Amino acid sequence: MSLLEEIESGATPDRLRRTAAAEQTSIEQLRAKIIAGSAVIPWARGNELAQPCAIGEGLKVKVNANIGTSNDLCRLEREMDKLRACLDAGADAVMDLSTGGDLRAIRTAIRAACPVSLGSVPIYEVLSDLIREKRSPREMTAAAMLAAIRLHAEDGVDFMTVHCGVTRRTVEILRNDRRLTGVVSRGGSALANWIAATGQENPYYEEFDELLAICREYDITLSLGDGLRPGCLADAGDHAQMEELYTLGELVLRCREAGVQVMVEGPGHVPLQDVEAQVRMQKVACHNAPFYVLGPLVTDIAPGYDHIVGAIGGALAARAGADFLCYLTPAEHLRLPDTADAHEGVIASRIAAHAADIARGLPNARDWDDAISKARKARDWETQLDLAIDPQSARRRRSQGLPADTSVCSMCSELCALKGEGGL
Amino acid sequence: MSLLEEIESGATPDRLRRTAAAEQTSIEQLRAKIIAGSAVIPWARGNELAQPCAIGEGLKVKVNANIGTSNDLCRLEREMDKLRACLDAGADAVMDLSTGGDLRAIRTAIRAACPVSLGSVPIYEVLSDLIREKRSPREMTAAAMLAAIRLHAEDGVDFMTVHCGVTRRTVEILRNDRRLTGVVSRGGSALANWIAATGQENPYYEEFDELLAICREYDITLSLGDGLRPGCLADAGDHAQMEELYTLGELVLRCREAGVQVMVEGPGHVPLQDVEAQVRMQKVACHNAPFYVLGPLVTDIAPGYDHIVGAIGGALAARAGADFLCYLTPAEHLRLPDTADAHEGVIASRIAAHAADIARGLPNARDWDDAISKARKARDWETQLDLAIDPQSARRRRSQGLPADTSVCSMCSELCALKGEGGL
Repeated sequence: MSLLEEIESGATPDRLRRTAAAEQTSIEQLRAKIIAGSAVIPWARGNELAQPCAIGEGLKVKVNANIGTSNDLCRLEREMDKLRACLDAGADAVMDLSTGGDLRAIRTAIRAACPVSLGSVPIYEVLSDLIREKRSPREMTAAAMLAAIRLHAEDGVDFMTVHCGVTRRTVEILRNDRRLTGVVSRGGSALANWIAATGQENPYYEEFDELLAICREYDITLSLGDGLRPGCLADAGDHAQMEELYTLGELVLRCREAGVQVMVEGPGHVPLQDVEAQVRMQKVACHNAPFYVLGPLVTDIAPGYDHIVGAIGGALAARAGADFLCYLTPAEHLRLPDTADAHEGVIASRIAAHAADIARGLPNARDWDDAISKARKARDWETQLDLAIDPQSARRRRSQGLPADTSVCSMCSELCALKGEGGL
Repeated sequence: MSLLEEIESGATPDRLRRTAAAEQTSIEQLRAKIIAGSAVIPWARGNELAQPCAIGEGLKVKVNANIGTSNDLCRLEREMDKLRACLDAGADAVMDLSTGGDLRAIRTAIRAACPVSLGSVPIYEVLSDLIREKRSPREMTAAAMLAAIRLHAEDGVDFMTVHCGVTRRTVEILRNDRRLTGVVSRGGSALANWIAATGQENPYYEEFDELLAICREYDITLSLGDGLRPGCLADAGDHAQMEELYTLGELVLRCREAGVQVMVEGPGHVPLQDVEAQVRMQKVACHNAPFYVLGPLVTDIAPGYDHIVGAIGGALAARAGADFLCYLTPAEHLRLPDTADAHEGVIASRIAAHAADIARGLPNARDWDDAISKARKARDWETQLDLAIDPQSARRRRSQGLPADTSVCSMCSELCALKGEGGL
């Protein structure tokens, strides 16, 4: 039985018990959400996760950090440093998106060092193999695509992004959409171009039962990728994007029937005024499956600051119902992130997630704010800095401009409002 | 006649003409907004502003940057560097909040070098004088408070924050509110404590006609300060805050009757779910006066990252109707900002303002996004980097991890989705 089937049967597998404890929720409450499909526990069979989590309705909004090599920058130690930086910064999950170097060696090393849910995108394996052999992505085969799924499952991945919704029909619609930036997802682009070139159906869609059988065997949580996510504000919410979304909704039901946990991925670039609508449409189209968003980026103009742009969109999306935020780093659109970028990205996403936790009415979410504010009022600097989301950075900044009277800060010096004589 | 009275009379003063040109709007459209009080032109008589702006309904959301010394860090050159950094980063207005050193010399130097609207908080002058003389803020006098207004007006300030709404009544209400962080505005704290100690009414409220007479004489735009703004999520939207807001609404009408342009300041720390409600309440209570917000900060936990926290709140507030965003820097709550902080703060606020401009339906607001996205799709790196909100930072980041094939970036290398062979 898969984890989902065990939970449905009324049993209480260790993974459910330990995740409920980590989430500070009751086993029965979590069980109900897993059965309804509004939450998932991305934890594959046989893995030892020291820090498991659940993602979905009524739970703390989670943050994922993408690490991994590219062909231009493929040093394992660099990625291991990034992994540590992401974990230290508080990432709830990590995806290894490596596309350069010995992918299996990198994945295995990351898995061994990763105490949180680990995700991957198996089609990158197929594409990287072809590129190494100087062959065209059009030479992808259904067999290779399914083999990559099994390979990643064997290597201990907990959840996988698969672009099942890029189909002949969506590609046909895409042709009419006159997009400004076309297809910006790597997997989506490869599949759309493969479909356009071969005229064949997406094997991840056509062989979905086969895919589900592998996921069930290894207890992989599927993350249905948005291969046609908008890559700029102008393309947001177009016909192809919605066609893919409803296709994913259909596959959500097939996952549940097959005993496979599933979540759905979302955009991308979305104007501020449309973020809530997009989240609601996903919840409707995808039968309340947990929603995993990249950003959304509410403007295209800020390469170098996309962690901020993504935090704006992420906070709003999570307030509206998105459950899982994929971080964006200051390197987005410019280069592969380094360790410092990864750190900044996780913190920015955690800020968005926490603001949304409060807005979603998560019990006790504001306790942290109240505690730091109490310390601030008391000018208890040690406690205030200890409670900061990034204590090291807060301490460093404060020390760069220390006041003569260390009970205040150098912004206001003696004029500190909190020294108010009337105690108001 | 004041600028407002001239505009009401049907005349077209040069300041109106030049501001309309800068805003790319028609003189008559801008005139209607100024007369309705839903927009202001903060431009005092006799000043030469090379880059004027209007703030309010249907206009581009503007960004203010606070600079100025404190007693711990008071070097004029440091503040002049910050001024240049803020202007280079695209600030629409600057406030000199100096509280340390020779305030008049600093203000005059900043004014001479500042091509945009300049604001100040005259009560800081009074408080700094008292602190220098080792006297208590309780020794403030009505005469000194009004003299500071005149002094700043003579020095060429365009707009001033005055905390007129901290009254005996609001202080009485405040006592019942059991705030977690009390009063966190410097001016508000000094006034509340002065009222509590002396039992007298706030001179800026009691002598409001006198204040208006000075503003009218020099054509100062009043920015009615929120002395009781919440300093933490727990205190947001309490009775004292709303009492002050409605008092400010009453004063808005008195400003308009006196021919004085006016805007209103807002919080502060506000939970994500309450940002829109707070903006709407301000618009109702203050008769559609332009709303100038500090943040809002949607969580208290992130000292070191408050520019990001403020960008989340600012984008949402501006979408809901806030017109003027006061920047927050990574130094907020920790120390006086330095030049790098000021730069980061302006960029973060401009991102929020731009995302909101698009959401507010400002004509052509998305053109910038479309242009950079077109360059991105074409992998035209020069154009893409030129169009970035901070081209220098974008170039620097890209150069830190250049790919072998410079038509892509080192994130995806050969796997770049935009190289899609099918051109989808």
